[in-house]
Order: sequence, then C-alpha cells, then structure tokens
Amino acid sequence: MFEKFRLFEKGAIKRLPLTEALNTFLAEDLISPENLPPAPRATMDGYAVRAKDTFGARENEPVVLELVGEIKMGEAPLLSLNPGQTVRIATGGFLPPRADAVVMLEHAEENQNLVEIKRPAAPHQHTLLPGEDFSEGALVFKAGQRITPAVAGVLAGLGFTEVPVRERPKVGIISTGDELVPPEEKPPLGKIRDINSYSLYAATQEAGGIPTLYGIVPDDRTALSTAVEKALAENQVVLISGGSSVGTRDYTLEIIKNLPESELLCHGLAVRPGKPTILAKVKNKALFGLPGQVASALLIFYVLVRPFLLYLQGAEGEGLLLKRIWAKASRNIPSVAGREDFVRVKITSSPEGPIANPIFKKSGLISSMAEADGFLRIPEEAEGIYQGEWAEIYLLP
Amino acid sequence: MFEKFRLFEKGAIKRLPLTEALNTFLAEDLISPENLPPAPRATMDGYAVRAKDTFGARENEPVVLELVGEIKMGEAPLLSLNPGQTVRIATGGFLPPRADAVVMLEHAEENQNLVEIKRPAAPHQHTLLPGEDFSEGALVFKAGQRITPAVAGVLAGLGFTEVPVRERPKVGIISTGDELVPPEEKPPLGKIRDINSYSLYAATQEAGGIPTLYGIVPDDRTALSTAVEKALAENQVVLISGGSSVGTRDYTLEIIKNLPESELLCHGLAVRPGKPTILAKVKNKALFGLPGQVASALLIFYVLVRPFLLYLQGAEGEGLLLKRIWAKASRNIPSVAGREDFVRVKITSSPEGPIANPIFKKSGLISSMAEADGFLRIPEEAEGIYQGEWAEIYLLP
Repeated sequence: MFEKFRLFEKGAIKRLPLTEALNTFLAEDLISPENLPPAPRATMDGYAVRAKDTFGARENEPVVLELVGEIKMGEAPLLSLNPGQTVRIATGGFLPPRADAVVMLEHAEENQNLVEIKRPAAPHQHTLLPGEDFSEGALVFKAGQRITPAVAGVLAGLGFTEVPVRERPKVGIISTGDELVPPEEKPPLGKIRDINSYSLYAATQEAGGIPTLYGIVPDDRTALSTAVEKALAENQVVLISGGSSVGTRDYTLEIIKNLPESELLCHGLAVRPGKPTILAKVKNKALFGLPGQVASALLIFYVLVRPFLLYLQGAEGEGLLLKRIWAKASRNIPSVAGREDFVRVKITSSPEGPIANPIFKKSGLISSMAEADGFLRIPEEAEGIYQGEWAEIYLLP
Repeated sequence: MFEKFRLFEKGAIKRLPLTEALNTFLAEDLISPENLPPAPRATMDGYAVRAKDTFGARENEPVVLELVGEIKMGEAPLLSLNPGQTVRIATGGFLPPRADAVVMLEHAEENQNLVEIKRPAAPHQHTLLPGEDFSEGALVFKAGQRITPAVAGVLAGLGFTEVPVRERPKVGIISTGDELVPPEEKPPLGKIRDINSYSLYAATQEAGGIPTLYGIVPDDRTALSTAVEKALAENQVVLISGGSSVGTRDYTLEIIKNLPESELLCHGLAVRPGKPTILAKVKNKALFGLPGQVASALLIFYVLVRPFLLYLQGAEGEGLLLKRIWAKASRNIPSVAGREDFVRVKITSSPEGPIANPIFKKSGLISSMAEADGFLRIPEEAEGIYQGEWAEIYLLP
C-alpha cells in the first residue's frame, strides 16, 4: 500500500526554530558547516602532552615534564608546548598547539611545577581529533530524520537553530451512521455515542496532523457528499469512519467517482480487521474510508493512515512505522494465508523474553479497546503463529 | 529515588476538553455513569430471535420463524417479538424486546416473510448484554491512566467530553559553563555550543512539561545564584546542567543551602552515567543538577527527571517509566555491583529475538548521541550482563 503514497505531494517545506521542531522530520539532508571539534579536545581530565615526550615512561621510571600552566574551560589554548612541557587540562578542554595526547590524572603525579608521567601516551590518546565528530561537508542527518531530543542536541551543537521541515497535514474527520449521537448527548434507545471521531482525533494529533471534526453525518448520500466536499476543501486528508451500513460505503464510492480529478487507489485491504478500507486521491488530497467498528478504525489508522500522515511530513522507511518489537506468542493464533492479520496483544515478560498475549474479546466491547500494548502482525504469507514463535509487534504510541 | 517524589505536590487539577487531553493523565478515578450498552445489542449480522424458539433446529430440519421486520441502525427497537417471530438485525443493532439471541446470516435462509433457522441459538448468543461493557458505577479508568487515542475513544463512548487532569509543570532550563556559547554563535577557539539547553528543552516537551530557557550561566557563584532564583520563581522545576567544572557543582550545593526552605534530597546517584546528579526541594519546587556531558545529561533526564515530570502530571507506577522491552545482549557488558548502569544500545532483530547492541564510542562525540534506540539497564545488584542474556531496555521516545 505504501507505494501509493508516492502519488501524493508531501507538505511544503518551511523553516522552524529548533525549539518548535520536536517530532518533525528533516525535509533536507543536513551537511556539517564546519569541523567539529574545530581543534583537538581532551576526553579525560589530566595533562596535555607531546606524546613522544612520554615514550618509555613507566610506573617506577616516570618521565618528568615541566608544568607550564592550565587550560581553563572556555579559554583559547594559546600556550604552545615546547619539548618537555605539559599543561593541566580538563575533559572537554582544547589541547594547546603542539600537544597531541592526554595523560589521565591517575597516571601522573604533580609536584610543584613538575609532573611525573608514569605511562607512555600514544599519539591522539584521550583526545578527539578535529572533525572526528563531524567533518566539514559531511552528512549530519538525512532527510526524513525525526527530530528527537538527542537529534535536537546534535543540531544545536552544529549551530542549526532553524531546521527545514514540512507543513503538518490538516486532517478532516467525519463519522457516519444513523445510530450515532455526539458524546455530550445521552443516546436515546437505539443510538450510541460517536467514538471514532475522538479516537481518530487524538491519533491524528499523535501522528503530527492537525485534526478538525466535521461531526456525524447520517447514512445519506447528499449529506455525506456535502460533508466530504467541505472537508476536502479545508484539509489535505479526510477520514470517513463508518459503514456500519453497507450503504455508507457505496455512497462513499459513488461520491469519489463523481468528484473531479478523483481516483480510487484502493478498495478493500487484505488486512484483518479492515477489509472495507478505501483510499482515494482527489486532486492532491487523500480520502480514507475506515471501518465503523471502533477498534478496527483505530487499527487501520495505525497501519495505514498514520504512515501516510508521517509520509506527508517527510518521514521515510522505518520512520513511517510504529515502534516495533519482537515477542513470543503465548498461544497459537490462527490466520488465513493471503491476508495480513493484526491481533491486539498485551506484552508481559518471562525468563525466555517478552510474551505477546492476544486479547480475544467480543468485538463490540469498547472496554477492551484501551487494553492493548500493541498489535501482533501475522504476515500475508503465514497461516498463523504458533505458540512460542517470535512475532512482530507494533507498539501503540 | 522515586519515593522522594512524594515530597512534592502534584499539579493542580483542572478539566480539559477531551480533544486537548492527549497524553495527559487522569487525575481522578472515572466511574461509569450508566450501563453500556444500555440494552442488548447484536455482535453479528443476522436475525434476532427468542433462543428457545430455535432449540432443536438443524441444517436439514430447520425451525421456521415469521419475519416481522428489520431493526434499522439508530432506531429504537420497538417491535416486541412474539413466539415464533424474528427480525433482521445488523451488527450493533439493539435487540427488540423479548429477543435474547442472534442467529448469524450464514445459519439462516430467508424466504419471503419466513426465515429458516438451521442451528439452535444459545441464549445471549452473538449479543452484548446490558452493562457488559461497563455497568453503572463500575470503574472505567483509575487515576493515573494516560489518555491515549484508544482511551479517548472509550471516554467519548461513555460521555466524558471533559476530563480531570493536572497542570503541566513549567520547567526552567539553565546551562552552566564558561566554555559555552549559544548555538547561533560561531564558537571562538576554546568554546563550544550549548547542546544541553536544546536536548533538555525537547525532552521536557516530550515529557509534557512547559520548558523555558534561561540561557548560559558562567561558572560564577553570583551569576548562578541569580539565575537559579529567577528560574525557581517562575517554574515548578529547574534543571541545571553543567559541572564541567567541579566549581559549578559546589556553587549549586551552596546556593541550595542558602535558599530558604530548601532541602538537599540527593547528591550523587548510584547510576552510571550520572554520579554527580543533584536533587533538591526548595519550598514546593524541584531543582535538579544534571551532568554536563551531553549524553549523560539526557540519560539522567530520562531515568529521573522525566519520571518526576510525569509524576507531577499524575502518572503512576509503570506510567512513570519509558516504554520497556527485553532484548538479548550482543556481547558481554561489564558493570560494577552497587551501581545501576545504563548503556546506550541499538536494537536489531534475529531469529532468537531482539538483540541489544551496545554503542561504545568516545563519550565526547555528539554524533553518537542520536544513534541509540534505547538504554540497556544493568541492575544495581548485577556485575554485568552476559552475551545472550536477556536485558531490560528502556526505549527512547
């Protein structure tokens, strides 16, 4: 399915201050503008030396060097070492000119203005070389890299205080079904509250989209058509959940057919649950038809819509997917070849590693919806997973 | 350490619209205000029946019932079944009065106004009973529950359109060190850019806090004291990263001692990296002293500060921790008993399950900072992890 994503334009590139960029994705490769470090730095507290001055040093035959000063943090190391000289240096300090190694505190003994060096220093020992972290012109991060706290740190370290990222997609959410009332209403007998609008709203937020609710639309062709056109005009992505009646699905297909520049990219996924899923392209906008059953709608969001929203934001490859782990199935889980199955699981620990415990409950129960830690995936070619077999688990965010 | 958290007051309780509550934590237990479902519902498409009417039905000796109508989605099921009658019903439909089971479409055959039932229905078959999902007065979620998309769905389904959550903590961030310049400046020789402000800023955002940067403070007692007092006045939590010089740590301790109503709760953690960590309470505010080394500062944030920020927001128990998985160590990893070790790892997959590959790199390299998928934890009582042994991994968010 993901190959269909390429038919859609990604979000426009803009520049964001680093402090607003958490969980966005780099829209361009970032190249190091300079050598980092620009000059050699110490990675240990100790003494900066010319390595060859220390050759032959031993515990009971130390080399004695003249202590000519100290490199203070933040000061330029102006003091150039002459043969036989050393300076005190702290972790992170810049080595003075002509020093090329650091001797750890533990391997030296200071006496007035002399330092006994008790072990020979190899050249470049306990130092970072210029450009060892990033050399000028080297790739720092590829386009598609998610900006995590650690990535933000690296970017700050290289002076990237603004980063090129893509606009977050606006997502319109429509719930359909004659049986639905808004959650603030007490449903009269025969009706239930709209759940999908709220789970999909939160899931869209988690996926970096900007959701807008378009409310509940009855199973009626005209009403649905009006709502879809409005949502398409105002968003890059529209989610229609419903199809508790087959009618809604038929209406959705009909509406897509009648919209100008529209193309049905997918009708029915070889995925359980989620068979009735629809994906269409209308101009450059995407329209998803999701199942009405609440747990299924959320699952299809996670396996299809979330990757699409991340794609629009510039994520790539693995970055499109939920975090995945591996766990052993606690029991046999049958499936059918030719269909990808996603089974809700709770993860527990055991001496043989993590265990995935499938949650089998009546599908209409919303109480089971929030229990899962993730989804166990049974690939299309498999006829099930045996008890004790390793399985791929998509962790819920 | 976490037991010290109880010395601090959690954030004030407020009510948030459900659409703004993603990744907040419930501040109170939520009790179901009603039975869900309020009346029996079908979990399959088929025919609503009185179960006893179908007893004895077989493939070649079907029971024949009179079809008296259809339950439309969203309509109150007013039609009461007399003996020998049935109605068409869709998944999710409410059963008519006196019906107590559903026969699947596949086990029935409709002929004009008659339906042949080919299998007996057990009472309550393919139905949800009133209150089966949540009964009136039952606990829906405990205080401390994180609001995920699925939880938001459950809450909408029960009519909770506003939820009690706690104020997010304001977090002031101070970087110390004479060697630091802001990232927008090109550092002169001897100086480097401030990284911790930006990684801790993003990490605070991820943890639900509201960060403010207080910039770079030189290794100077008065300057640090002024910055700390200002940050404490304006935030619930203050993070000081630094101590590239021992001076900063001493200043921090001295400042804490001199602040009114202050108490040093911790000075030094039995954790590697992160030995120099400081936690103090100043009135009801928290002050953390974090290591200056960038990867260590972020690690201590994840293992100590993040749980604290989540605690203030009302998270409990497991909810305070990063998502954890288990993986086998790819090699022996030595440690020292009496100290908790956290080792950065990359996770890969293998036929024997997930593998944790430790990242051993020079600690001054920021390029390695963003490579880790998580931290492998070596517990205090262990002297290391053997190759092939299962280890606990904290996944980075």
